[in-house]
Amino acid sequence: MFESAELGHTIDRATFRKEVPKLRAALLDVQYDVLEKKEFPVVILVSGVDGSGKGETINLLYSWMDPRHISTLAFSAPSDEERARPFMWRYWRALPPKGEVGIFAGSWYSQPIADRIAGSMRRSELDQVLDDINRFEAMLVNEGALVLKFWFHLSKDGQKKRLKALAKDPRTAWRVTKASYERLKTYDALQKVAGHVLRVTNTAHAPWIIVEGTDDEYRSLTVGRIVLDSMTRRLQQTERPRVPVAPPIVKTIDARNVLSELDLGQKLAKKVYERELARWQGRLLELAHDPRFTEHHSLVMVFEGSDAAGKGGSIRRTVEALDARQYQIVPIAAPTEEERAQPYLWRFWRHLPRTGRIAIFDRSWYGRVLVERVEGFCTQDDWLRAYAEINDFEHQLVAAGAVVVKFWLQISADEQLRRFQERQATEFKRFKITDEDWRNREKWDDYVTAVCDMVDRSSTGLAPWTLVEANDKNFARVKVLRTVCERIENAIRGNDGP
Amino acid sequence: MFESAELGHTIDRATFRKEVPKLRAALLDVQYDVLEKKEFPVVILVSGVDGSGKGETINLLYSWMDPRHISTLAFSAPSDEERARPFMWRYWRALPPKGEVGIFAGSWYSQPIADRIAGSMRRSELDQVLDDINRFEAMLVNEGALVLKFWFHLSKDGQKKRLKALAKDPRTAWRVTKASYERLKTYDALQKVAGHVLRVTNTAHAPWIIVEGTDDEYRSLTVGRIVLDSMTRRLQQTERPRVPVAPPIVKTIDARNVLSELDLGQKLAKKVYERELARWQGRLLELAHDPRFTEHHSLVMVFEGSDAAGKGGSIRRTVEALDARQYQIVPIAAPTEEERAQPYLWRFWRHLPRTGRIAIFDRSWYGRVLVERVEGFCTQDDWLRAYAEINDFEHQLVAAGAVVVKFWLQISADEQLRRFQERQATEFKRFKITDEDWRNREKWDDYVTAVCDMVDRSSTGLAPWTLVEANDKNFARVKVLRTVCERIENAIRGNDGP
Repeated sequence: MFESAELGHTIDRATFRKEVPKLRAALLDVQYDVLEKKEFPVVILVSGVDGSGKGETINLLYSWMDPRHISTLAFSAPSDEERARPFMWRYWRALPPKGEVGIFAGSWYSQPIADRIAGSMRRSELDQVLDDINRFEAMLVNEGALVLKFWFHLSKDGQKKRLKALAKDPRTAWRVTKASYERLKTYDALQKVAGHVLRVTNTAHAPWIIVEGTDDEYRSLTVGRIVLDSMTRRLQQTERPRVPVAPPIVKTIDARNVLSELDLGQKLAKKVYERELARWQGRLLELAHDPRFTEHHSLVMVFEGSDAAGKGGSIRRTVEALDARQYQIVPIAAPTEEERAQPYLWRFWRHLPRTGRIAIFDRSWYGRVLVERVEGFCTQDDWLRAYAEINDFEHQLVAAGAVVVKFWLQISADEQLRRFQERQATEFKRFKITDEDWRNREKWDDYVTAVCDMVDRSSTGLAPWTLVEANDKNFARVKVLRTVCERIENAIRGNDGP
Repeated sequence: MFESAELGHTIDRATFRKEVPKLRAALLDVQYDVLEKKEFPVVILVSGVDGSGKGETINLLYSWMDPRHISTLAFSAPSDEERARPFMWRYWRALPPKGEVGIFAGSWYSQPIADRIAGSMRRSELDQVLDDINRFEAMLVNEGALVLKFWFHLSKDGQKKRLKALAKDPRTAWRVTKASYERLKTYDALQKVAGHVLRVTNTAHAPWIIVEGTDDEYRSLTVGRIVLDSMTRRLQQTERPRVPVAPPIVKTIDARNVLSELDLGQKLAKKVYERELARWQGRLLELAHDPRFTEHHSLVMVFEGSDAAGKGGSIRRTVEALDARQYQIVPIAAPTEEERAQPYLWRFWRHLPRTGRIAIFDRSWYGRVLVERVEGFCTQDDWLRAYAEINDFEHQLVAAGAVVVKFWLQISADEQLRRFQERQATEFKRFKITDEDWRNREKWDDYVTAVCDMVDRSSTGLAPWTLVEANDKNFARVKVLRTVCERIENAIRGNDGP
């Protein structure tokens, strides 16, 4: 794997001086083309052995291209903000939008490699992380990103020599620290771990590019040319690569499905409702302040449902109990321009709560497999691919301590009609009903299919769907509150338990 | 995930009787179309809860289709043969060829689920296996297979009722054993593990299809229709789905590469050669009989090299030391008809040695990234995709105890010309030189690129390439023998060590 990066690759100064001006001009050109088209982001990972010229190369790319459209992201120890969220959160928030170049100095690989060398991570745990990384990178590529993963390599001897040379030159001596020499000692351990990591993550869609770091000119020209070639080719690529996706399965043999079997007649009388509401609101307030929750968990609530099913009312009754500083309601409408320039899940990642906090999504990432599917706003492959990505996303939330509670509020077609008519008749509710609502109603059956598929494919042990019988608003609101409380109780008991 | 399979789905007998004849006729039709086209295999997995009707459904598919073109593979405890090879070997050998239907009763999922429930497998270990499975299924789909994964589900109560019903009916009572009731006790554990396994392996390319197993007619009709629809749609699909694949990277900045830097002038004088040859042949014989080798390892040797580089001679000198009952030489030429009907790696899997044995591949799975790449026998995507699949394959070999030793024998262009001319002049060697050899020679530079890429992307810590300077046959043969001995020694020492 590293063989061809230990050959003493080198080019002479004269060639370098002759080649660089041409390369710079071409790089600038292609950068502007990418920027203008805004079709894909360029994600460049710069990793490798210490002293192999990672920093210099990044600086060079800046000087060769327009730095206003490059962002560099260096990741050292995670911040408070970052530690309180899933591992990949810091990388999601740093993704460059379409048209831009994002350079990751260090990356999602740095921490796992360091932990493994230090022995604080088992081999099988490392493999789990690598698996997450492979899925993340597959998602990036599936979303269209150009992903270039550079690994700068030095032979053991080469690393020693380079450190000496850097230390000797007064302009670079500051870069050689005691830590640099420490790292010489872990050279073999790094090679072993890196060899494994690179093998497992050397996927067809995002392969590693290993570059010898000894000779500055060779390294710079190599990287510059590969970036240029790759951006040029990606621009020329007209056909979007499609991952193989199994077509949807039709299972309507009988008339039963998870929605038809709901007992929508369930009701709560006003008195019972008021008592139960107060009881569960009180319990939720307690739980939200329980240190077993605030120190180890966050809460992510998802509200989806038929139009006029009462999502808003349920959310209001839920947050009535809570302190506004602890929660955030995130209404999901059409994505903003900034959000459209990112992978689909990016706009949800950005709103994830930190430990001890609560995020309430009024509609959510399930839009892709509901409205976008039914209305044809995305391709069939896109929404079919989304199930696995969503499960993966929620799994990462749960792994980081989030309690993920997902509600589908269901009303009957008759009840919906009654509510629509009522809304139109009531002045202050009229804003709630639009032509679109009437159009959606005509697609009732398509939505039923979409919801049933959604439950089949994304109701998991870690993040199950709760279907809420919502013809009676009282019943629905209490079921929502009770479910949230029970899920938090389960989570904090799991924390205490064996 | 299991919600819609706990609704008590059912259809009445009359409907079933009316629907079945149509379904059978259509299934037979589509089966013959698939058989005639021979474009893809159909892989059907039947898994699920005990008593959910797995066996009945398989038998029904047999009675509905032409059983001559269905094979059913039941996997219980692995045989001696199977235990002595990598975990996936038994499944590779059972894959149906293109045009045929293969039903897996139990499958690659059964053992990991059972081990996890029994507690003999850690969660992180399970996830590693699931990751292997996901890659295996991705490979199947990438190779064109139609993969249908059925999971038959019963609610806890449903399982109890079904067992009672089966026990009551004299025709089915034999199917209910003590073990069946034992399994009732592990129902919750199975659901938890299965929920996790199904979530992680619910990929876009090979999603799970969950079917309620309570009502025989419902289950049968559901499965029959899904098989019919899926086969029909797969036949209509003209465009082959392409996995996103990063294009090849051109790195020729200077003239150096792993081949150019070899010192082809290295030689061994006849006397030294004879002494060294005898020494290492003796050592190899010892090692091949060492119980630390025969009980824990197998040996997989790969010989690749330029034409006339001396692969045959090196192989002969290697096996001279060995007992013919212990090794197998596998010459790789164009694939047979049977092999062409299978995924690319199938023809190599079938020749894997069991523990204690040796397989010597004269050319190998690297054909795809060498001759097939250079000659255009496969698409660029195919050979780019192959690197990761090959690394994965070799990793499975090593994980199962194989020592994988890969040789590339390199000679100079001049030396090759000399040998070609000599072969043409020597009567008994003339069969060794063909027009094709001369044509290959014109593509020398393309082969150099292919070999360098191959080393970059498939020389891993577990299965490194050894480049052999082969202008001098004596030198090459001794290097090969010495390397094999050293690699076996390393492996058996690893077994003893800390």
